[in-house]
Amino acid sequence: MYVIVVYDVSVERVNRVHKLLKTYLFWRQNSVFEGELTKAQLYELKRRLSKIVKEEDSVLIYELPYKNFNLHVIGTDKSPVETVL
Amino acid sequence: MYVIVVYDVSVERVNRVHKLLKTYLFWRQNSVFEGELTKAQLYELKRRLSKIVKEEDSVLIYELPYKNFNLHVIGTDKSPVETVL
Repeated sequence: MYVIVVYDVSVERVNRVHKLLKTYLFWRQNSVFEGELTKAQLYELKRRLSKIVKEEDSVLIYELPYKNFNLHVIGTDKSPVETVL
Repeated sequence: MYVIVVYDVSVERVNRVHKLLKTYLFWRQNSVFEGELTKAQLYELKRRLSKIVKEEDSVLIYELPYKNFNLHVIGTDKSPVETVL
């Protein structure tokens, strides 16, 4: 599966969420990560996120069957995922 | 088509981008909008966004063929799209 993760968490938790997501996915833009995950990885990521995130925070994980979208960029693509080695 | 829009724009342009997106899509979370668009609407939205957005900003439009994702929420879903009338 392919996931797009967007998050809106309070400032004292942002670094921890960012660090955790970086171990599974690519940084795409401020508060946005993307990448391929297995079902097991998604389950584990959700479990680890729920230990950090509080009720007033919001982390949304869009789970797509595969990478089936066209990406339109206006302005700059701050982290072209394709060029990440 | 179904689109997910995420944006990271400098503070002096955020309101204009937010207002424009609100005329086409649902607000989902801080800097995230979603919704159904026709090809013509997507073309027009991109044209109008490019008049506001500068090179250092970043607006990403994920164009999906249809709404074919599972949404996992950790914390709060700040604007349940389904309940918007």
